[in-house]
Amino acid sequence: MTDITVAAIADMVGGRLVGDGSRAIRGLGDLKTGGADRIGFVRDRRYVALAETTKLGAVLSKSELRTPASLIVVPNVDVAYAKIALTFHPTPRASAHTIHPTAVVDPRAEIGSPVQIGPHAVIGKCTLGAGTVVMSGVSIGDGAVLGRDCVLYPNVVVYHGVQIGDRVIVQAGSVIGSDGFGYARDGTSWIKVPQLGTVRIAEDVEIGAGCTVDRGTLTDTRIGARTKIDNLCHVAHNCVLGVDVVMAANSGVAGSTTIGDRCVIGGSTGISGHLSIGADVRFGGGSVVLRDVKEAGDYMGHPLMEKRLFLRLLREQRRLVEGRDDGGDRDE
Amino acid sequence: MTDITVAAIADMVGGRLVGDGSRAIRGLGDLKTGGADRIGFVRDRRYVALAETTKLGAVLSKSELRTPASLIVVPNVDVAYAKIALTFHPTPRASAHTIHPTAVVDPRAEIGSPVQIGPHAVIGKCTLGAGTVVMSGVSIGDGAVLGRDCVLYPNVVVYHGVQIGDRVIVQAGSVIGSDGFGYARDGTSWIKVPQLGTVRIAEDVEIGAGCTVDRGTLTDTRIGARTKIDNLCHVAHNCVLGVDVVMAANSGVAGSTTIGDRCVIGGSTGISGHLSIGADVRFGGGSVVLRDVKEAGDYMGHPLMEKRLFLRLLREQRRLVEGRDDGGDRDE
Amino acid sequence: MTDITVAAIADMVGGRLVGDGSRAIRGLGDLKTGGADRIGFVRDRRYVALAETTKLGAVLSKSELRTPASLIVVPNVDVAYAKIALTFHPTPRASAHTIHPTAVVDPRAEIGSPVQIGPHAVIGKCTLGAGTVVMSGVSIGDGAVLGRDCVLYPNVVVYHGVQIGDRVIVQAGSVIGSDGFGYARDGTSWIKVPQLGTVRIAEDVEIGAGCTVDRGTLTDTRIGARTKIDNLCHVAHNCVLGVDVVMAANSGVAGSTTIGDRCVIGGSTGISGHLSIGADVRFGGGSVVLRDVKEAGDYMGHPLMEKRLFLRLLREQRRLVEGRDDGGDRDE
Repeated sequence: MTDITVAAIADMVGGRLVGDGSRAIRGLGDLKTGGADRIGFVRDRRYVALAETTKLGAVLSKSELRTPASLIVVPNVDVAYAKIALTFHPTPRASAHTIHPTAVVDPRAEIGSPVQIGPHAVIGKCTLGAGTVVMSGVSIGDGAVLGRDCVLYPNVVVYHGVQIGDRVIVQAGSVIGSDGFGYARDGTSWIKVPQLGTVRIAEDVEIGAGCTVDRGTLTDTRIGARTKIDNLCHVAHNCVLGVDVVMAANSGVAGSTTIGDRCVIGGSTGISGHLSIGADVRFGGGSVVLRDVKEAGDYMGHPLMEKRLFLRLLREQRRLVEGRDDGGDRDE
Repeated sequence: MTDITVAAIADMVGGRLVGDGSRAIRGLGDLKTGGADRIGFVRDRRYVALAETTKLGAVLSKSELRTPASLIVVPNVDVAYAKIALTFHPTPRASAHTIHPTAVVDPRAEIGSPVQIGPHAVIGKCTLGAGTVVMSGVSIGDGAVLGRDCVLYPNVVVYHGVQIGDRVIVQAGSVIGSDGFGYARDGTSWIKVPQLGTVRIAEDVEIGAGCTVDRGTLTDTRIGARTKIDNLCHVAHNCVLGVDVVMAANSGVAGSTTIGDRCVIGGSTGISGHLSIGADVRFGGGSVVLRDVKEAGDYMGHPLMEKRLFLRLLREQRRLVEGRDDGGDRDE
Repeated sequence: MTDITVAAIADMVGGRLVGDGSRAIRGLGDLKTGGADRIGFVRDRRYVALAETTKLGAVLSKSELRTPASLIVVPNVDVAYAKIALTFHPTPRASAHTIHPTAVVDPRAEIGSPVQIGPHAVIGKCTLGAGTVVMSGVSIGDGAVLGRDCVLYPNVVVYHGVQIGDRVIVQAGSVIGSDGFGYARDGTSWIKVPQLGTVRIAEDVEIGAGCTVDRGTLTDTRIGARTKIDNLCHVAHNCVLGVDVVMAANSGVAGSTTIGDRCVIGGSTGISGHLSIGADVRFGGGSVVLRDVKEAGDYMGHPLMEKRLFLRLLREQRRLVEGRDDGGDRDE
């Protein structure tokens, strides 16, 4: 069980300490129910009253307030919360070197130490960095390279040759490096085009559960540092995603499309192939993107429009249909 | 092989028996080809003629009709069919207690009897109710609790702490309890927010193949009793789905959204986060839901509209484009 | 390492050889960097200059050009490229008969020779054709039949009774034969309808990663020869897909819908149930198909329209909203 003083927490989150810094904190707590060894959070004014009577040992807040708890004032409560929560509930990391006897590990694999390899994992002639956790039923192909402190949850599949950076997390059941959807049209049918590239995932990327990232045709599919991909997302062959991209669930990017840095892709969004999406573009949920988008900003809809135009279209359409509320529905 | 009399079947489905109830029925049959130990169904008038000459031992119908078969008259043929079909083709259930020697089972797991655990399953320090079937390659984390008579098809992943009620069915490859998509924005990048809640699935829920249900951030993601979720669906962290909800394939519900009882979500529907959808709301296929929907009824489209307004919009748009069928497409 | 003369390659692709046919080619190469034992490609005029100075042993082109390399002139460079690439990078195929000791194989299974079965695979009382490769963690149910030279990538699940033809490829994590989404409405709740059909997949089909194909209710779900399905696609129970269909990622077809031969389904497309889609219909990405489509041609959008009408609608909508660029957005 981690045990850390309020002063140390204040340092860690770059906060200003008000009150006793020597108290020992052992975990997260709720303003109402938490005890003296817990830290809680005041996210907005509604919780100020609770802070005044809390039994928590420490409280995090954006501004000063009256409380018996030690107070840590921070500019961004969410970020401070995330950092503190990660301290008490860290991402899995291999401490002892443990390879389950049922795991099948190629003797030629280059495995750092410590790593943790779970039951029934199948590890090819690959490279695993120290600290990496490979859970049960994971399959890693020959020539794959995983960095340090990665986590592959159960039943993840990493194909041959895939390159994964440090601290990458892949949730259960995701598939990295499957063949891209490439066929040459031969009359009315299709001939498979071997997919000879691979997938390169930079450091600190997280990929959700049930995702698929295809290997490239000749070049590589690439995902930039710190990019976060939600569940059931698809990244097609030859795509290049920038850094700090956020892609919400049930979204797909078709082949050879480039997504700029810091783009935010809303859920259930489909992005067509061979497109160029600039940096800092944000797509609302359910967008269908069939054209390049160069300018940063907010876009929505199918057809895709600048958000403010889309919202205006909605109003126009409502006027159109509500203004005609006659018997015109007989033919429905 | 099950063997049951027509009279017993009539009792089971609350039907009215006409004719010989003593005949032994051993399975389902077709009006044209089925024999004397089979039961068939007259779903509409088109099949009445066939019923008159059928060799089936028994026939199910909404109304009386002439047939050499024993007749069972029921108000709802589909429901009666489902109940009879389940009798002859029951959902898998552990009868003998069988744990495959290649399964890896934590000795601290609390396992009811009988249960059936398949090859290469990995069972943490969890609780499994009697009658439950865990098929090959399934992974169940520490602290998970499964009720009685559940079925987990091959390669399902249940994360630590997930709570699953009685008679829950999860089709192959689905993931229950993966980390929610939670990050705190820190300047231009994102810090992972540990997902400390879990997933609670009530009794008689069925989850299709390739689905993902994320664990909650602080509270739990919840799915109500008897709710049915189709393949490749995503339920995000902190969502609360009501009872008897039906969610068709390729649909997703973003974080912290509440779905009321008996909602019907058409396929390929995307529902945004932090929304409240009332009871008995029905979304047509391909809907994009970006706002609360309080009133029961039918809704469609992107933007979402009441179904009748959406259908009117379709007509208006068709008039608009077809009424302008000039050379205006040169610039295409 | 394959080693093949330029003349033999020209024969294989039905191309016209210009220059020395005796050179030995060992792989694919780039016009800039490739050596004398490599073959490269001139896809368009931009590469003609490079061809004049290349060190490649052979070059493929649609028309004659000046080059020190042996030249193979072909009508379709993409098709020729695919065939040559497959020669040097063939789809996995069992050569030696190897069943990994950790695989669990039902002694009653009928297994051709040679087959390759990976670690932790679970093979029921099924039939596997010679040449077939079953990778790690794959589960195949009783009564399933796989043809010759199939490839099942890691963690694929094939349910009982599924029929798969020769040379079918299934990428990692896909599920074939899961229960269809069938329930009978009983008042406000739902009773499971047993899914008694199976899935029949014809020869030369490829199914991407993370897909689901449900078994039929009474009849079978069918996928026609040479059809290609991308990642995270769903094919529901009782669907019948024709031959040479192409279905791009994140798409779904609901129950009992028929898709004609040579249809092309763009990404993130949702197709409703009980529909009939004719041959040679093409849906643009993000289409929502709620009605039958009999006529061949291009369709897009939600609502679905002929492509040219949809593009006109886009222009009309843009005019509508841009022509009203007043203060009307205050209420946003």
